[in-house]
Amino acid sequence: MNVSIIKIGGNVIDFPEKLDEFLELFAQFPGKKILVHGGGVMASKFGESMGVMPQMIDGRRITDKDTLEIVTMVYAGLINKQIVAKLQGLDQNALGMTGADANLIQSRKRPVKSIDYGYVGDIENVNIDFLQNLLDEDIVPVVCAITHDKKGQLLNTNADSIASEIATSLSKKMTVNLYFCFNKAGVLIDEKNDSSIIPLINEDIYAELKKENVIHSGMIPKLDNAFAALNKGVNHVWIGKAENLLFAAKGKVSGTNIETHKYDLY
Amino acid sequence: MNVSIIKIGGNVIDFPEKLDEFLELFAQFPGKKILVHGGGVMASKFGESMGVMPQMIDGRRITDKDTLEIVTMVYAGLINKQIVAKLQGLDQNALGMTGADANLIQSRKRPVKSIDYGYVGDIENVNIDFLQNLLDEDIVPVVCAITHDKKGQLLNTNADSIASEIATSLSKKMTVNLYFCFNKAGVLIDEKNDSSIIPLINEDIYAELKKENVIHSGMIPKLDNAFAALNKGVNHVWIGKAENLLFAAKGKVSGTNIETHKYDLY
Repeated sequence: MNVSIIKIGGNVIDFPEKLDEFLELFAQFPGKKILVHGGGVMASKFGESMGVMPQMIDGRRITDKDTLEIVTMVYAGLINKQIVAKLQGLDQNALGMTGADANLIQSRKRPVKSIDYGYVGDIENVNIDFLQNLLDEDIVPVVCAITHDKKGQLLNTNADSIASEIATSLSKKMTVNLYFCFNKAGVLIDEKNDSSIIPLINEDIYAELKKENVIHSGMIPKLDNAFAALNKGVNHVWIGKAENLLFAAKGKVSGTNIETHKYDLY
Repeated sequence: MNVSIIKIGGNVIDFPEKLDEFLELFAQFPGKKILVHGGGVMASKFGESMGVMPQMIDGRRITDKDTLEIVTMVYAGLINKQIVAKLQGLDQNALGMTGADANLIQSRKRPVKSIDYGYVGDIENVNIDFLQNLLDEDIVPVVCAITHDKKGQLLNTNADSIASEIATSLSKKMTVNLYFCFNKAGVLIDEKNDSSIIPLINEDIYAELKKENVIHSGMIPKLDNAFAALNKGVNHVWIGKAENLLFAAKGKVSGTNIETHKYDLY
């Protein structure tokens, strides 16, 4: 069995028209598929309207009790259910879930070291049997960025990590392709120029681009995440814009493909 | 197969300690089961904190666009996912759902007559095959009071109606017992006295009690709902307090049992 795991972020979710456009593309995306989403910007906006300000330490978001309530409402409620209803309208049999539902993703509250991140979970286990049952029934799981500790506590969890962990877990049973949609056309030589896209990155190229500081800051965890997934058995990782997803599915160059192959340059 | 459908309302949901107590009872409840919940009071509270005031016409709530967003966040997000996580902590394999998820409950936006109720849905169809699959896998569905029209629109839907419609639909395939938990010990002769409980009501007794004005106002739609479910094939309906649910499961008198049997008084 083949399955595609597609992760979308704020640049798609935060704009109703963009989300609608994306969901129409997603509905046309061939084969078995799983959608993973976050929604941080919308959660911050709702939080502020309720007097709960985003708390950051060293540029990283802290999830206190109030923030956890808000992300639960916004990710698992508002965003997840609007996506599910719209996909149902497009004849996609979507089922929205957090990691708590059917014990899909069990995580551990991040231990307090120099920073107390609060109610943040690091993933420990993915219930691949349940996911496989859903895929067998042609259900499209729509998974939001919340997990649980199996002791009654919900935990805020990075959506990129959820996509990667689902991908690596399922890769034990099937061929998995992982697509990260973000606000750029791919990994870029010049981050202000969408046409400076690097079509293919392997580990050697990645090392070189990091050394030359072409790849830096926020792209590094994204690519580390991608290579980790490939090294754990994921077939293929793609990074690019949501609107190019169908080109990517057809194998056309439309973003950055991440690979672990070595190229023989001699 | 036997299945119990248990509906809880605001008097359980709105108080964290009561909810925890209830969920421990629910975890002990024997056999296959489905939990149905609303959460109107909490939704009103959150709405007010965001400047969205409850709108009522003739004592009935109107669901405008903002209200729909809030109930989606509160019912499907906050309440549903906290319940699911807590049940998972009690080793119940809960799966939280709206009617949009896996097309569980399809409804139709209520037509505008004298009152425009807004985004309110009247139930048209329940996906009993999917529910049966979940029950077969020992999953505990936790269903909140939101449905959809299968055209992309979420709709606010009465939780009592959801419980009844799931019950009557499933009764085509299995034996269904339906439990409505509310803020009184059952149907009472004197509504201020919890010990004046009427242990059994059939249609004759109901007609008599309505005539004598013992049963009036809010109890009438509840009982009409109960009799409608029985007449459509539900095995047994119980109305009482959440804390008496386990007694009810054991067949002890602990609330009001609704039956369609005629008693031969001659």
